[in-house]
Amino acid sequence: MILAGGSGTRFWPLSRELSPKQFISIFGGVSLITQAVRRVSELAEADGVHVLTNERLRDELQNHLKSQAALVGCTIDYLAEPTPRNTAPAIALAAAYLERLDPEAIMVVLPSDHLLEDGERWERTLRVAVGLAERGRLVTLGLTPTYPETGYGYIHMGAPLTGAAEGDTLGHDVAAFVEKPDRETAEAYLAEGGYLWNSGMLVARAAVVLAELEAAGARAETPDSAGAAEMASVAREVAALGPKTWTQDAARTRFGALPAVPFDKAVLEVSDAVAVVPADMDWSDVGSLAALEQVAAPDERGNVLSGNVVDIDSHDTIVYSADRLVATIGLADLMVVDTTDATLVAPKDRAQDVRLIVDALKATGAREIVESRSSLRPWGSWTLLTKGPGFQVKTIEVSPGQRLSLQSHEHRSEHWVVVEGRGRITRGSEVFDIGPNESAYIPRGFTHRLENPGTSVLRIVEIAVGDYLGEDDIRRFEDDWQR
Amino acid sequence: MILAGGSGTRFWPLSRELSPKQFISIFGGVSLITQAVRRVSELAEADGVHVLTNERLRDELQNHLKSQAALVGCTIDYLAEPTPRNTAPAIALAAAYLERLDPEAIMVVLPSDHLLEDGERWERTLRVAVGLAERGRLVTLGLTPTYPETGYGYIHMGAPLTGAAEGDTLGHDVAAFVEKPDRETAEAYLAEGGYLWNSGMLVARAAVVLAELEAAGARAETPDSAGAAEMASVAREVAALGPKTWTQDAARTRFGALPAVPFDKAVLEVSDAVAVVPADMDWSDVGSLAALEQVAAPDERGNVLSGNVVDIDSHDTIVYSADRLVATIGLADLMVVDTTDATLVAPKDRAQDVRLIVDALKATGAREIVESRSSLRPWGSWTLLTKGPGFQVKTIEVSPGQRLSLQSHEHRSEHWVVVEGRGRITRGSEVFDIGPNESAYIPRGFTHRLENPGTSVLRIVEIAVGDYLGEDDIRRFEDDWQR
Repeated sequence: MILAGGSGTRFWPLSRELSPKQFISIFGGVSLITQAVRRVSELAEADGVHVLTNERLRDELQNHLKSQAALVGCTIDYLAEPTPRNTAPAIALAAAYLERLDPEAIMVVLPSDHLLEDGERWERTLRVAVGLAERGRLVTLGLTPTYPETGYGYIHMGAPLTGAAEGDTLGHDVAAFVEKPDRETAEAYLAEGGYLWNSGMLVARAAVVLAELEAAGARAETPDSAGAAEMASVAREVAALGPKTWTQDAARTRFGALPAVPFDKAVLEVSDAVAVVPADMDWSDVGSLAALEQVAAPDERGNVLSGNVVDIDSHDTIVYSADRLVATIGLADLMVVDTTDATLVAPKDRAQDVRLIVDALKATGAREIVESRSSLRPWGSWTLLTKGPGFQVKTIEVSPGQRLSLQSHEHRSEHWVVVEGRGRITRGSEVFDIGPNESAYIPRGFTHRLENPGTSVLRIVEIAVGDYLGEDDIRRFEDDWQR
Repeated sequence: MILAGGSGTRFWPLSRELSPKQFISIFGGVSLITQAVRRVSELAEADGVHVLTNERLRDELQNHLKSQAALVGCTIDYLAEPTPRNTAPAIALAAAYLERLDPEAIMVVLPSDHLLEDGERWERTLRVAVGLAERGRLVTLGLTPTYPETGYGYIHMGAPLTGAAEGDTLGHDVAAFVEKPDRETAEAYLAEGGYLWNSGMLVARAAVVLAELEAAGARAETPDSAGAAEMASVAREVAALGPKTWTQDAARTRFGALPAVPFDKAVLEVSDAVAVVPADMDWSDVGSLAALEQVAAPDERGNVLSGNVVDIDSHDTIVYSADRLVATIGLADLMVVDTTDATLVAPKDRAQDVRLIVDALKATGAREIVESRSSLRPWGSWTLLTKGPGFQVKTIEVSPGQRLSLQSHEHRSEHWVVVEGRGRITRGSEVFDIGPNESAYIPRGFTHRLENPGTSVLRIVEIAVGDYLGEDDIRRFEDDWQR
């Protein structure tokens, strides 16, 4: 169960509302969510990978992961929660949903937007956690700290649990969850040992998650756990309606009334069943743009320069350019983040304040907050080149063997010029192929489809002309992607 | 005689090799060179406005000024100097050229890339200078300092010259030319009075310029003036060949052998005929990007924010965006200069070091040093949207009543889609009109022409497809602009 409802505005301009942090592919070459899915796809049973997101992001996530199908390597069950209520209601709903599929289900809850070392150590950690989960534990994964980070919560380990151990990987009771410490405290934790970074990764039987929610609610030891039993019952009720109805009014009203509380607060901090498996692995929550420091090796002046960048005399500065040329002179402790349509310049230690920019831009309705100039589709991608009064120009890439939906537009005509590969075009009752340097005209109102029948990429330039050019002027008659 | 050979790399990324500082229109709404031409066009005789540039920039300058013909308001004589040798040889050649046109010619030599107050004070200053020039003086214009600038040279005024005075505007002898002073000296000049900023503007009879070059060379008081007589004789020799031959080998060899010396050093600092007219006017040499501070009024924190900019907490910072979104947080004393294809970030006090960036980029052959994504043409303009393997996409704007040359391409075909206005298309022996949402295909090798027969702008999107897409793949059969 991959949680992918995050908005990721702290990563603007690299992330956008419709393409949040989990879509970013600058860490590790493929997107963080693709990495998350790959991390579990071989370990999960068939049809066992679920992504829980929200209604607004569901289509974008499907487009994104379908375009990376070859990397993802499994089918995915897409779920949209009724409304965002933090992780306790979300995990409750996920547990109730999985319990209905399989009363014995063990769920692994993973964030979609973290960086984590893959491979043997990850798999061993997960097997130990699953072993403890089979014994009825709520198991969190804790990362061995490598420096006194003040931005993470910590888990203080208790007594060892030898039950499911593999070699020196073994679970522990939890002595305490502790909030983000100050620098001095973080240093003490590191020196003392026995403290782990709280990663937010959870492994447990779905039934145990629900039972522990009920128990926490019954005991009501803290304000945050008082509503936990209600979460379990509402989650079961909503799950019973079936996920297709979750974004309808009935589910939304019930679910929306639950307290918006993190699962840590609602259950883990008050549960007797909680355990932690320490993992000595590379991990980052990629919490702000300052994480760009991990994109490339620093130069001798401590700069991390990535992309089309030329620098004179800067030090301890991050310059990230997705595509355009960025030139910097004599900067210190700054970050410059450049994308096709927007650039951010700020001191590294104000990376968290990007949300202030996002808030300011939201207030003006700036398009650059919502989406970037490119969009992945299940069949390929498009990039907006320019938009003017009554027209817009895009490049469109269609992957080999893929096709767009059979569609029509009420307000725009389209001119297509193939610049690479071959395209098969359906226009009204005609079907014909065109190759490089050939064009086709799709008049307003005509049913049409673009297909790549070849084995290499099809690239066209599309000029749309009309009085309204929004993406929502589309009527779909037939779609390989059930949109 | 407007000197327009400057490369203006200190203004990168706003200026480029093919579109140097004089093309920038962010100061005063129209380009600096257009302002310079307008400043003299009504005062000069018919056919009396000359622009001296170099071979590489001549076409670009013609395109630029022809596209602004309505603003320029006069015909212009375009001259390309044989090779760049600083201002002394250039002014010598200009004087020799003008002397051949009219032995009595009075020349006004103006830079093409400065900001200067226009209007009554300017005209009065110029009339007084012309009056002194008629009396055989080499007249420089000196600006009354308003603050202790250390980036300009100063002129120390001598005795007043009442001859050509108008009201309180009158010329003076020159006591001394002084180099760029340190701060303390500049403050002393300002307190003492009698010191003026050296603007580089010169008014003199062409024959006097040549005579004073000869006299300075004969006296040879300084190393820089020793070659002055040679400049006068070579200039007369080259001028006699006719300006069409100036960029050919004979002229280039003769002219290229002259010492590359500023006119101030070669003549003014050693001449007895020199005079200065003080002008109490707004003026700036727009010497570096720090001049962007003049583009808009500073906000209460001393920031100058221009264009699509959102800022949180910065102070004393310049953010200039031509088009894209730029977001800044907590910057101090920095400048961020953003253009379609390149962004510069640097401390304001390192504005001069932009040349280091330009040098570094030149070494890598970066296109962003040479040209921007847009280019003014005499018939309108084009903007490159994207370039990929085997294709490129442009928008093309044709001004009302204008047309491109009748041309053909050996390596590319073109697909045109009209998105605004009406276009008249010549293709081989056909001539036809197309309007919005209509397209035309120009196969490789076909003679063709695009014309705007209407009274409003014609805008098309052009997709060029071919194995070579350089601007130099063009054969012109007929051209309204004699290219």
